[in-house]
Amino acid sequence: MINLSLIGIGTGNPDHVTFQGAQAIRSADLILIPRKGENKADLAGLREDIIDRVTETPPRIAYFDIPRRRADDGYLRGVDEWHDAIALRWQEAIEAHPEAQNIALLIWGDPSLYDSSLRIAARLDPKPNTRVIPGITALQALTAAHAIPINDLGAPYVVTTGRRIRKEGWPETASKVAVMLDGECSFQSLRMSEYDIWWGAYVGMKEELLISGPLDQVAQRILDTRARARADHGWIMDIYLLKKRDVQQRAANTDS
Amino acid sequence: MINLSLIGIGTGNPDHVTFQGAQAIRSADLILIPRKGENKADLAGLREDIIDRVTETPPRIAYFDIPRRRADDGYLRGVDEWHDAIALRWQEAIEAHPEAQNIALLIWGDPSLYDSSLRIAARLDPKPNTRVIPGITALQALTAAHAIPINDLGAPYVVTTGRRIRKEGWPETASKVAVMLDGECSFQSLRMSEYDIWWGAYVGMKEELLISGPLDQVAQRILDTRARARADHGWIMDIYLLKKRDVQQRAANTDS
Repeated sequence: MINLSLIGIGTGNPDHVTFQGAQAIRSADLILIPRKGENKADLAGLREDIIDRVTETPPRIAYFDIPRRRADDGYLRGVDEWHDAIALRWQEAIEAHPEAQNIALLIWGDPSLYDSSLRIAARLDPKPNTRVIPGITALQALTAAHAIPINDLGAPYVVTTGRRIRKEGWPETASKVAVMLDGECSFQSLRMSEYDIWWGAYVGMKEELLISGPLDQVAQRILDTRARARADHGWIMDIYLLKKRDVQQRAANTDS
Repeated sequence: MINLSLIGIGTGNPDHVTFQGAQAIRSADLILIPRKGENKADLAGLREDIIDRVTETPPRIAYFDIPRRRADDGYLRGVDEWHDAIALRWQEAIEAHPEAQNIALLIWGDPSLYDSSLRIAARLDPKPNTRVIPGITALQALTAAHAIPINDLGAPYVVTTGRRIRKEGWPETASKVAVMLDGECSFQSLRMSEYDIWWGAYVGMKEELLISGPLDQVAQRILDTRARARADHGWIMDIYLLKKRDVQQRAANTDS
């Protein structure tokens, strides 16, 4: 039976790697690395850099191409077929190295958070013995960069997607909401005068950009900064935390 | 101006420390370590072990006692006064070492998630230049141990407390809810036949305990295991992820 390690490597700062992650990389006899289709040109060398840094003799690397995703077939069905296609590439790479027992993938962020690798691993046949090594997520890199807590004292927070914010609005019971996977600055669909925002792009990396303040006052600056950075780098990953002002106060009153 | 680094060290596995965290420990010329009142006997030596491991010459350490928390004064007001009292202990320790410029605290989990250190740091006078180094949280150690994603595909999740679950019930729009800081197995207040649970205690540590399954079928086993472990170790920290079955399906239908 094959051991498959999904190793969280953080958000582009090689110093996000944990000792546990480094050890798992050293234990691998084959590492699968996506080559094309990852749409993050500046990151191409990141995984190789991390491997070089933590190993004396780098393990064997098998590159695979990430297939294109079809966008014309409904959101979940499109994702489902895309995961099938990626699983096939993993399967081919694994079968091409029958000597490898300990196979690893280096996963951006944490393999458990808004990541597909566990779902792809579950499609492999025969099923591997899958192990997850947690890594620093973009949400943590964001709150660390702004030096703020995610949650208000004793209060819940919600992690959701830009798509949900646009379709369903603000989750009613939440005081703080973190928005991931938002290519469209979906905060514009909210009544912006009621919120504060902590926004970041390339969080944890040397290119890091941070903006925070009352949403209605900084929204345009975020839009402009984001567009310019995307043009400059050819890609962007951003994330933000929103706080609804009155909900937080209501929650505090309930509690005391 | 003093530099104060709040360094996330993960959940008791010294291998959770990141390269960035190790570097920040090496850069400190004074590390503040809580000595009494942390109610986690097995953890007393963890911070010293981590410091010894990542430094050649350990930096100076100042121990401080965590004051007792008053529970008789309303939840938020009690916490507020407690944070004032802890801030005084930090202040005393810092003032006793006027030569120290780079001061660090090693924070269980991540300083941004259900942790008070940022709120305590904000009470210091003069205000330090505060830097946060993210660390692996108990929620990540839980999902890694169970090898499951936190979120359903494209779906939101909520992080909340046992207190909120007891007082307010299930957050209506959520398909997955992670419950932190729950000393009372508050899942018992839900209609248990509607949920699946992934529970863990001492997640990431060698004492780790894991139970998962339909909530109504495993609840008693969790209660018994938790009580026995708490008696054996003298302390327990546990966390769990809940999934409401029908909400998830409704979300999937909306999406396709």
